[in-house]
Amino acid sequence: MGKIQTISNYLKEQSIDAAFVTTPDNVFYVSGFKSNPHERLLGVMIFQDAEPFLICPKMEVPDAKAAGWSHEVVGHEDTDNAWALLHQAAEARGLSLQNIAIEKSHLTVERLEALNDFFPATKFVGFDDQLNNMRLVKSEEELENLRQAAALADYAIEVGCSEIAEGKTELEILSAIELAMKKKGVYMSFDTMVLSGKKTASPHGNPGERKIEKGDFILFDLGVVYNGYCSDITRTVSFGEPTSAQKEIYEAVRNANESAIEAVKPGVRAMDLDKISRDVITDAGYGEYFTHRLGHGLGISVHEFPSVHGANEMALQEGMVFTIEPGIYKGDVTGVRIEDDVYVTKDGVEVLTKYPKELIIL
Amino acid sequence: MGKIQTISNYLKEQSIDAAFVTTPDNVFYVSGFKSNPHERLLGVMIFQDAEPFLICPKMEVPDAKAAGWSHEVVGHEDTDNAWALLHQAAEARGLSLQNIAIEKSHLTVERLEALNDFFPATKFVGFDDQLNNMRLVKSEEELENLRQAAALADYAIEVGCSEIAEGKTELEILSAIELAMKKKGVYMSFDTMVLSGKKTASPHGNPGERKIEKGDFILFDLGVVYNGYCSDITRTVSFGEPTSAQKEIYEAVRNANESAIEAVKPGVRAMDLDKISRDVITDAGYGEYFTHRLGHGLGISVHEFPSVHGANEMALQEGMVFTIEPGIYKGDVTGVRIEDDVYVTKDGVEVLTKYPKELIIL
Repeated sequence: MGKIQTISNYLKEQSIDAAFVTTPDNVFYVSGFKSNPHERLLGVMIFQDAEPFLICPKMEVPDAKAAGWSHEVVGHEDTDNAWALLHQAAEARGLSLQNIAIEKSHLTVERLEALNDFFPATKFVGFDDQLNNMRLVKSEEELENLRQAAALADYAIEVGCSEIAEGKTELEILSAIELAMKKKGVYMSFDTMVLSGKKTASPHGNPGERKIEKGDFILFDLGVVYNGYCSDITRTVSFGEPTSAQKEIYEAVRNANESAIEAVKPGVRAMDLDKISRDVITDAGYGEYFTHRLGHGLGISVHEFPSVHGANEMALQEGMVFTIEPGIYKGDVTGVRIEDDVYVTKDGVEVLTKYPKELIIL
Repeated sequence: MGKIQTISNYLKEQSIDAAFVTTPDNVFYVSGFKSNPHERLLGVMIFQDAEPFLICPKMEVPDAKAAGWSHEVVGHEDTDNAWALLHQAAEARGLSLQNIAIEKSHLTVERLEALNDFFPATKFVGFDDQLNNMRLVKSEEELENLRQAAALADYAIEVGCSEIAEGKTELEILSAIELAMKKKGVYMSFDTMVLSGKKTASPHGNPGERKIEKGDFILFDLGVVYNGYCSDITRTVSFGEPTSAQKEIYEAVRNANESAIEAVKPGVRAMDLDKISRDVITDAGYGEYFTHRLGHGLGISVHEFPSVHGANEMALQEGMVFTIEPGIYKGDVTGVRIEDDVYVTKDGVEVLTKYPKELIIL
C-alpha cells in the first residue's frame, strides 16, 4: 500500500479530516521529493479521500514533479503568502476541516499560529508517533537503498585505510575519502570524522592537521546518502603494532559490538541490547569510559526514531534498522568505537555494514 | 552592553518575566556557545534580574564553560526529563513567571506543550523580532569576524581559479577548495558549488563529474565560517576566450551587482536595491533570466534576517551585513552570478568580499 493511502486510512480510522506533513524527511517519505526549503514553506497535505497536494517554493515545482509526485503541486514565491495559497488549495476540495493532524515535533509555534489564522475553527492534533511508526519498519525497497548506502560506507572505510601513511594529516585522509564518495555520486550523511592518536578518545575531537604516527589508532566515523537513505559506520584501525593496552580496549569494544548484534531479534527490547553491550565493557573494566547510548534508528534521517539507550523499553520489530556503536574513550591510551548498521529480520539480524572487525594493523 | 543585559532590559521594558532562547544560532549569539544539539534540548533562560542559565546535554557542559559561559549550566542526560530540570532551575530563582518570551519561529508545538505542562499558569509571547533586530546590527567585533570570513572566501575563490584546467572535473576542483579551507582550520558555511559550462545556468545544478572544457564559464558559490560568522561569495570566470554572448551576460550581471552596491547607504530600502539591480538586467534584455531575490542577511547564519527582495520595504541601517547577488541564467548560453557581502556604514558601504569582478579569462 502506498504511503499516502496508509495515511488516508489512518485519518479515517481516527476521524481526522486532513494531515499536514512538514518535516523535509517525512515529505520525502510520503512524496519522493527531497528538498531543504530552509525558511520557506514545504509540506504535503493529505485527506481521507480527496487528492493530496504538495506545497513548495515555485522554483522547485519542476523538481517535485521530476521526483515522481503526480498529484497537485502548489508553488509559492517569496512575495506570496504561502499560507493563503495552502488554505485556498484545501478549500478547493470543498471539505470542512474540523481537525488537522500536524507534526508537533517539527511545526513551529509561529506556523501553527499561521495555520490557525486561516483555519480558525479547526483543531490541531499531533501525529508524529504515527509517522515515526510508519518509518520504523522499512520496506524491501527501502532496505535495498540502505544496503547500498552501507556498501558505499564500507568502501569509504576501505579508501580511508588505503590512504593512511606516516606524516599524512587527518584532513588529507578525510578529503581523499570525501572526493572518492563524490566521484561515486553520493553525499556524506554527516561531517566525516577521521581522528588519530589520543584524539580518538575525545568525544568532540575534530579532524585537523595532526599527522599520523606509528602506533596511532585511527578512528573513522562516516556515512553516505544513497537514494535518500543514510548509512553510518565507525571503524578503528591501528597504524603499526598496537600496545597490549590498545589491543585490550579494542577487543572489549569488538565483543560489546558483536554481543549486541548476536542478541538482535524481534521482541528483544532496545534497553536489553544496550545492557548486553555495556555489560561486556563493564566486565572488561572500562564501564566508565562508555559514555553514550548504544545506537539510534537509521533511514531517511541519519539519526531517527528510536533511540537505543538503557531506558528504552521498546521491543524490536522485524523491519527496523538501527546502529550498534559501543565505544571506549580512555584518554591516556586510546579511543575505540565500532559501529554497524543492522536490520531486524523475522528471527534475527542482517548486518548491513560488512567491513571487517578484526583489528586491522596497517 | 552585553547581550544578556540587552535582553534583560527588554524584558523590563515589556514587563516580561523571562526569555527562553532556543535557536542554536541565537544561543551562540547570547552565550558564545555554538552547538548543534540535534533533537536534544539546548537553550538559554534569561530573567529581568536573576542569573541566567544555559541548559544543554550533559556531555557538552565542559564545552559551554570553555566557550566562556560563566553563569549556571544545567546539564541533562538522555534518560532525564530535560523540561523538569529546566523548571527546577527556574523555580530555584524564586520568581513567579507570569509570562515567558519564546522564539515562535523556532520553538516547536511539542516543546511549547512541554513548557506549558511545567508552567501551566504562564503566558508565552514571541520575541523573534527583538532577536532579529539585535542581530541585524553588527558590533565591531562581529564585523571583524565577518571581514575575516570574507577574506577566507576570497582565498577559496583564488584556490578554485588556480585549480581550473582542461579535463579536471567540477568535483576535483571543489575538493581542492575544501581541503585548502580545512587546512586553514575553517568549515564551509554551506555545500560548495562548482558548476561549469551550461550547468552554470541550472538553479539546482550539483557539482559532478563533468570535465572542464575550453570556452566554459565556471561558477563558484561558497563560504566559510570564521569564529562562528559566515561568508558567502559567488564568482564566475571564463576558461578560454568567451563568446560575445557570454561577455554580454557577464557585464550585465557585473553592472547589476555594482549598481546595487553603489546605492547602499542607511535609509535606502531593501526593495530599492533589488529594483536598481533588476532594472540593469531588465534594461540589458535579460530580466526574465534573473529568477531570484537580490540577497539575504548574513552573520551567524548564512541566511538570516532580512531578505533583500522586491517587496521588502525595510530601510537599511548602519551595521547591517547582507549579500548582493544578481544573476542571469540563460540555458542556451551560460549562467552568471556575482555575489558580494556588504556592510552598511554611516554613509555608504564597505564591501567585505574583495575578489576582483572584471571578467577573469583563464
